[in-house]
Amino acid sequence: MREGEFELINRVFKCAGGSSTAFTRLGIGDDASIHQPQAGMELVVSTDSSVQGVHWPVDFPLNQAADRAVCSALSDLAAMGAEPVCTWLNVMAVDSAAVQSMGQGATAALQRYDVELAGGDTCRSANNALAVTVAGQLPAGSAMRRDAGLTTDAIWLCGRVGLHALGLQQWFKGEREGEFIPYFESISPLLQAGISLRQAGVACCIDVSDGLLQDAEHLCISSGIGMDIDIRKIPDWDYLCATVGEAAALQSITQGGEDYALLFTAPADTKFPDANFPKELPVCIGQCRAGKGVQLLLKGQKIDIQVTGFDHFK
Amino acid sequence: MREGEFELINRVFKCAGGSSTAFTRLGIGDDASIHQPQAGMELVVSTDSSVQGVHWPVDFPLNQAADRAVCSALSDLAAMGAEPVCTWLNVMAVDSAAVQSMGQGATAALQRYDVELAGGDTCRSANNALAVTVAGQLPAGSAMRRDAGLTTDAIWLCGRVGLHALGLQQWFKGEREGEFIPYFESISPLLQAGISLRQAGVACCIDVSDGLLQDAEHLCISSGIGMDIDIRKIPDWDYLCATVGEAAALQSITQGGEDYALLFTAPADTKFPDANFPKELPVCIGQCRAGKGVQLLLKGQKIDIQVTGFDHFK
Repeated sequence: MREGEFELINRVFKCAGGSSTAFTRLGIGDDASIHQPQAGMELVVSTDSSVQGVHWPVDFPLNQAADRAVCSALSDLAAMGAEPVCTWLNVMAVDSAAVQSMGQGATAALQRYDVELAGGDTCRSANNALAVTVAGQLPAGSAMRRDAGLTTDAIWLCGRVGLHALGLQQWFKGEREGEFIPYFESISPLLQAGISLRQAGVACCIDVSDGLLQDAEHLCISSGIGMDIDIRKIPDWDYLCATVGEAAALQSITQGGEDYALLFTAPADTKFPDANFPKELPVCIGQCRAGKGVQLLLKGQKIDIQVTGFDHFK
Repeated sequence: MREGEFELINRVFKCAGGSSTAFTRLGIGDDASIHQPQAGMELVVSTDSSVQGVHWPVDFPLNQAADRAVCSALSDLAAMGAEPVCTWLNVMAVDSAAVQSMGQGATAALQRYDVELAGGDTCRSANNALAVTVAGQLPAGSAMRRDAGLTTDAIWLCGRVGLHALGLQQWFKGEREGEFIPYFESISPLLQAGISLRQAGVACCIDVSDGLLQDAEHLCISSGIGMDIDIRKIPDWDYLCATVGEAAALQSITQGGEDYALLFTAPADTKFPDANFPKELPVCIGQCRAGKGVQLLLKGQKIDIQVTGFDHFK
């Protein structure tokens, strides 16, 4: 007898994911999950879709695609400074083998970051896709938001940008051993860095998912500020110029998406202790100002780049 | 210039849905939404996928499909007895017209039940689909669950079953003015009835989404009980026998999915005041017992039906 939907779901998802927390009173298996945040804590929720042929190439392994989908959703919690507590997973799959692969990849990511799988839904579809909903918690009123940037703040970057886009190009060219492939194949959401930034008093942050320039624009619009970014201060500028040339470096750094670095504002003299940022020490890359829009500067010259970060419907 | 992703999302989703509540501290527009349940309340969360060609026929209007997707997700909150507070919407669409249609249908349903749209994600896909995540709240410890049925309880049904499946058959036959079409075209989640059941002390409930027999089996397995259901006590039995014949009535009542009635257990002498159930007065349809499995009875005879409720991967 072929395995049915419910046996399949039990086998792939039951007891998968990270360990359960006091936040969850009833986990996977009922019509809904039940939760209660600790007193004084707020709940932070985000959801992301990932679709085969859109968010990942059709020849990319499904388990890795699902791992990336979970990590991309967790990155939104990093941008708020929240500690992840649980996730709900929608798996849309062409067949049961695809359920198994995507389930395996998604639960591997949840185990790596010890995030509980609290519920979800598995169904058939003509196209493989996932929707990942994540919840985190933080002390009430402490979330980093897009709308809290000040004209007197500097602009900072925690993590690297531009490498994913170059990896994706190498994947499409068939250069499966390419230098940038690892940055495309997997995502590391900067969860601990996000929590450390919030604890350091940072009020305004966004994760770089649509491209540095486009996400900086989002932050500027929400906060009602403008921004000057000095391209040469971006961590990998010299490395990328030497490796792929200045034009490609500029393109991938400003327009490449899915890097999941954290872009935030804070006074220019803020000290971020090395011990709290073992991997990605924040770097000051420019200055906020009155007015509108993001101005890129290279060796003191204004650079005009049309924003072409990824747009699903243009 | 063609409208881009972010303008499209703003136009279709901003200020759409129901009114915001004290539960939501920061709504749509940031990397995540922020929430704080009232003291003493628990949060109830569920998520459902709906895929074109799987959950709705390809010739069914997208706005109605999205309306149904939201209502189907809300029904899970009804099954727990929770009051809905907000939703997060993943829209996967073949083009911007599909975003607009699905967005319009989903937000219409949210407005009808006054449920806030707290966030979401909109992207392109080769196949139209939605994932709807809903949150509700209720006093801590009061949720109705699948695993709380007792062998001494009776089994009750609130709402109608079998009509959706007959409507779907009429749709596929092109009988667009058919008697059962309205039961297929729209879903009414029994939110107020679910809250009233919880307040009446009902501990064990499930919504009938996969077919009465299959969902009754889910309840029995979770609660570790068996169950005898008297088919003739099901509200529309006589009506359906007269309209489509006994065999089709039996099939649609026991196996037809997506009716979103509430199946629950409670002592046989429980009184449910008419005033609390203006539309769907609960009806006692059988008795729980020790042992396993669901036994259907018709005029005192055991009826053996192989469970064939909808299965995505069989």
